[in-house]
Amino acid sequence: MGFFTLRWEDKKLILLDQRKLPLRHELVECKNAESVMESIKDLVVRGAPAIGIAAAFGIVLGSYKLSELPKKKFLEELDNLCKKMISTRPTAVNLKWAVDRLLNKAKNSNGSTLDIIKIIEEEAISIKEEDEQINKKLGEYGSTLVPEKANILTHCNAGSLATSNFGTALGVIRAAVAEGKKVQVFATETRPLLQGARLTTWELMQDNIPVTLITDNMAGWLMAKGNIDMVVVGADRIAANGDTANKIGTYTLSVLAFRHKIPFYIAAPTSTIDISISSGDLIPIEYRNESEVSHFGFYRIAPEGIKILNPAFDVTPSQLITRIITEKGVLAPPFLEAIKNIL
Amino acid sequence: MGFFTLRWEDKKLILLDQRKLPLRHELVECKNAESVMESIKDLVVRGAPAIGIAAAFGIVLGSYKLSELPKKKFLEELDNLCKKMISTRPTAVNLKWAVDRLLNKAKNSNGSTLDIIKIIEEEAISIKEEDEQINKKLGEYGSTLVPEKANILTHCNAGSLATSNFGTALGVIRAAVAEGKKVQVFATETRPLLQGARLTTWELMQDNIPVTLITDNMAGWLMAKGNIDMVVVGADRIAANGDTANKIGTYTLSVLAFRHKIPFYIAAPTSTIDISISSGDLIPIEYRNESEVSHFGFYRIAPEGIKILNPAFDVTPSQLITRIITEKGVLAPPFLEAIKNIL
Repeated sequence: MGFFTLRWEDKKLILLDQRKLPLRHELVECKNAESVMESIKDLVVRGAPAIGIAAAFGIVLGSYKLSELPKKKFLEELDNLCKKMISTRPTAVNLKWAVDRLLNKAKNSNGSTLDIIKIIEEEAISIKEEDEQINKKLGEYGSTLVPEKANILTHCNAGSLATSNFGTALGVIRAAVAEGKKVQVFATETRPLLQGARLTTWELMQDNIPVTLITDNMAGWLMAKGNIDMVVVGADRIAANGDTANKIGTYTLSVLAFRHKIPFYIAAPTSTIDISISSGDLIPIEYRNESEVSHFGFYRIAPEGIKILNPAFDVTPSQLITRIITEKGVLAPPFLEAIKNIL
Repeated sequence: MGFFTLRWEDKKLILLDQRKLPLRHELVECKNAESVMESIKDLVVRGAPAIGIAAAFGIVLGSYKLSELPKKKFLEELDNLCKKMISTRPTAVNLKWAVDRLLNKAKNSNGSTLDIIKIIEEEAISIKEEDEQINKKLGEYGSTLVPEKANILTHCNAGSLATSNFGTALGVIRAAVAEGKKVQVFATETRPLLQGARLTTWELMQDNIPVTLITDNMAGWLMAKGNIDMVVVGADRIAANGDTANKIGTYTLSVLAFRHKIPFYIAAPTSTIDISISSGDLIPIEYRNESEVSHFGFYRIAPEGIKILNPAFDVTPSQLITRIITEKGVLAPPFLEAIKNIL
């Protein structure tokens, strides 16, 4: 592929600026934890697995500044930094998962401050490398669900750009294409921030995977016309019972798929599963700035003073999910048991 | 109200340019049939009843140019012009309904060419004036369906801006508010052309009716949270069995409303009913230019060369419609009989 989502290079985290795609291909260089936190908040980097990885490197960058502290103080400060990093975006649990992995390594180490910094840097690199392997494994499992010829609807971007590489939902599609299946993707544009129109289309076009762009409100009509064979999307957090938080609009697609008897698949690494949360209504939903809806770039589209709601995610109840595709296999309902069995 | 949608003045049709709202308040002056046809195609004026009225005045303007023709030739040319006018937008049947009303008047007249021109001008003025009365009547009937306190979801713009005045779906809301009901409107932005974000919000704010803007893909989540009590939308064409073509995304809202047991109402004048069409699958669906999806104004949002689908309408099957609100009363299923009874 001709791009990378994030790269760890010379003690810096280099991010592809996803706010600018597909018109401009610009990089953002993060040299400290603060710039990583801002990049996550501002969606320079987005997608649950990718922000987990970015956050991990953000913690590593932050740890450099603490390198002269005595170990106890270092661990205290590191803990504070981890809390701040986790709070940058509340819904995607991979953020907490990745940061906790580093923090546990740090706390369990008998080494010095400098040893710990080295350990957590290695851990962050592992998380990034593992992620690509996980996506490929997940893609292999998922592709068994893809018919030989399939029109596949996806929402938002759960691709290479949402992960270290390969992608989750788009990983399933990539794996199916690699096996020679004839796939046609329909990408919803995904308002307000157009991750489908800007990122999914761009990413698939680079791989020569046929893709058609639609607005979010066209999906139902395509299903009614018999033009969609399956839906596959990513996830930001999966509760212990299988309820899944994902980009706003996912719930609507699940209701539509259910009505049209179209299989609806979630593709996500097991790090997206939060067994501490029993059901989806406990997942915190991030509400973002109203200007994401009222403006396109700097161009205002709605009247001044209009009241706006902007939830970034919704929750799809497990009853509307056909299968959850993970790197440990394809989970079938009842998800509560299936999830317990693989974790 | 501080605006008008269309006005007939000094033998000219003055249109509020709805492409520019809400940021700019500009008028377009049509002095001939061609400029009316372009204004309809380009969505200077939109909304099924409003384009019917505009088309009628377009025929009047066209007839002026034919005034020196002998009657037989005049009627032939008028007929040709009517066909062209009807073809400007294929889905909304009010266009054909209004143009046919003029053509029938012309064909049934014993007068001269000049007499006929006068007759069709009077007929066009009648259509415009009747439309406002129809909307007010329809609004009264519809408001009986609105609870004392109601969160109402609407899609696209079926308001004053889609009619001569008052509106259909928004007419129901205006009538309910006039009766003292506590109404909170949720307006979907309505991609790709944002009639909800640009027009419905603007129109309701001018009347101080509380309105909250959401993206199309948020409607399902609001319903799941119990925040919507009813849905009311307009229509572009209603088949004899009640199947209803309306702005793309309407079908999805009907599926969502059905799942959440929320009443789903169509509000439209009887001129929107096309009894010549037995069911919705026979309604022609207009596909519009891809640039409506790929661009915001002049700003490109999707990659160059991306394939795009852009159906402007979808069809909601009658089974998902709770009631059809017309100026002749509220129709209940089975709609085939209910429609027969009022036409």
